[in-house]
Amino acid sequence: MNDTFLKACRGEKTDYTPIWIMRQAGRYLPQYLKVRARGKGTFLDLCKDPARCAEVSLQPVDIFNMDAAILFSDILIPMEAMGLNLEFHEGRGPVFPDPIQNKKDVDALIIPDPEATMPFVLETIKLLRAELNVPLIGFSGAPFTLATYLIEGGSSKVFLETKKMMFQAPELYHNLLEKITKCTSLYLQAQAEAGAQALQIFDSWAGILAPCDYARFALPYVQSIIKDLQQKTSVPIIYFANNGATLIPHTVTSGADVLGLDWRINIKDAIAKVGEHAVQGNLDPLALFLPEKDLKNRIKQLLDNAHGAKGHIFNLGHGIVPQTPPEQVRITVDYVHEYSAG
Amino acid sequence: MNDTFLKACRGEKTDYTPIWIMRQAGRYLPQYLKVRARGKGTFLDLCKDPARCAEVSLQPVDIFNMDAAILFSDILIPMEAMGLNLEFHEGRGPVFPDPIQNKKDVDALIIPDPEATMPFVLETIKLLRAELNVPLIGFSGAPFTLATYLIEGGSSKVFLETKKMMFQAPELYHNLLEKITKCTSLYLQAQAEAGAQALQIFDSWAGILAPCDYARFALPYVQSIIKDLQQKTSVPIIYFANNGATLIPHTVTSGADVLGLDWRINIKDAIAKVGEHAVQGNLDPLALFLPEKDLKNRIKQLLDNAHGAKGHIFNLGHGIVPQTPPEQVRITVDYVHEYSAG
Repeated sequence: MNDTFLKACRGEKTDYTPIWIMRQAGRYLPQYLKVRARGKGTFLDLCKDPARCAEVSLQPVDIFNMDAAILFSDILIPMEAMGLNLEFHEGRGPVFPDPIQNKKDVDALIIPDPEATMPFVLETIKLLRAELNVPLIGFSGAPFTLATYLIEGGSSKVFLETKKMMFQAPELYHNLLEKITKCTSLYLQAQAEAGAQALQIFDSWAGILAPCDYARFALPYVQSIIKDLQQKTSVPIIYFANNGATLIPHTVTSGADVLGLDWRINIKDAIAKVGEHAVQGNLDPLALFLPEKDLKNRIKQLLDNAHGAKGHIFNLGHGIVPQTPPEQVRITVDYVHEYSAG
Repeated sequence: MNDTFLKACRGEKTDYTPIWIMRQAGRYLPQYLKVRARGKGTFLDLCKDPARCAEVSLQPVDIFNMDAAILFSDILIPMEAMGLNLEFHEGRGPVFPDPIQNKKDVDALIIPDPEATMPFVLETIKLLRAELNVPLIGFSGAPFTLATYLIEGGSSKVFLETKKMMFQAPELYHNLLEKITKCTSLYLQAQAEAGAQALQIFDSWAGILAPCDYARFALPYVQSIIKDLQQKTSVPIIYFANNGATLIPHTVTSGADVLGLDWRINIKDAIAKVGEHAVQGNLDPLALFLPEKDLKNRIKQLLDNAHGAKGHIFNLGHGIVPQTPPEQVRITVDYVHEYSAG
């Protein structure tokens, strides 16, 4: 068992810098596309098929020698389990045809029992643990990020409806977030119980909030989940607030062991602000389009800049894009291993 | 003549904090929509009609008592003048059907004479100066931001083509940026000569770059424009790098008198980093959806936080959204004036 990733999460000394990549099981991989095509179903069908989920989660570990696997799923799966219709439209992303608008909508949401409503996720975790010789990361969305999808009915540009609810109906907003928080808490606990060895909370849209609003309308729910988790499990928790450079003074209080960093901040500047936390990140996903020599230089610089971190897990600063040549991923993983072991 | 805005730009003492709002002449105003409808043409037709451009530029000054007017136009107007087809598609934004892909495309771009190719812009400026009793702001896009539209063929999500060109064909990218820089430089000079009393450079997409890439692929072209301008005119220059909190160590070297700030950073933290520069910003545009009491509190806090600035121009941290109730703009302008004069 290669536990380098877990050691880095805990801030323990490692022989080299571990690496995994957000969306490492995904559309950039021909092997993934093959599995996706084999089932003939939708993306959601794939998410609910443990055998295929496990297969695609294993692919990047086998192909590139990643130091961690991440469960193949989608952050919105538990939102469907709360009782909402969820659709994925090609090229448009997730859609909730009946967005949350009022008290009736919030009251109608259920707090799902993960075992009963999302057995396929827990089954995938068990299948993966039987196969893997690197740690398995489970995950969820953060309550604020999940709420944006529910309130906007999908992805958004300026998040008008979300902020209108925050600002004009704070009690309704709070009740919605409380329910999402409770659901997420149970969901992550169930993942840890099923065998997930680390948990990442994705706050993909945290960066659309002014710091004062983040502190009030997003952070408390993350803190609540993490506090809850830490009473029930000892797996390391990674919190990734995307576009969150100015939020670091707040995210350090989230309770997470590791802070994920997007690519907009020099990792050295981030490390100076995170105190005793390990960090994860933060190569621009598009830097994978650099020629090999330049890519290696960029990686070298990043690893040098991360030298003072209590722990460092190499990752991209956001998900890998589907157009990325897999060969560039191979170069990246190999060079991170080689240079950091040096 | 109310020159409070110009004084704040220069870091001189003012009796109160001046305010204007990005996109203050625009779709949120029924008066604007009326003028827009009157012409029956496209958005581009409006941009090329000096009488209507002047009319809509004056509206927010007359209606709300703004401390500056901004020329009504679009940052892509000079890109069309460089020889590219430009279309605006309702709901999709600007489209360049023939994006820049290779040396031939770059070579084909011309450096337009503003007087000959964009007389309507200069005419609008002259009309406005005859009417206004507050300063008039001219503007352009920053070369990097303009280049993204040309390379992507419009707006983008991850800016893959732009970064591919930067990373894989840096000479081609540089030649393109040099041409855009030259065009922008002449365009802004012509605006100042026609009567613009301040110039704002919009770097709307600066925030998609890692700081190291910003320093290499965006900042030098802004510096070149500003250096050029400062040899030919003494009007204050505002540089707005959107989503640019982590770029401040670089943007302070742009040469601009004023740094525009988006809403993701606490203005106090920004002021601590900008040295002797005046700042402009940075209320979340969606904060205009706060109830009156909360909105005033938010404004008060922002003004208090900006107290240490060498100069402060109140603005939103990005353009006002079309759904904003105009009454909220009135509350904002009045309260900024009232509280800061206090």
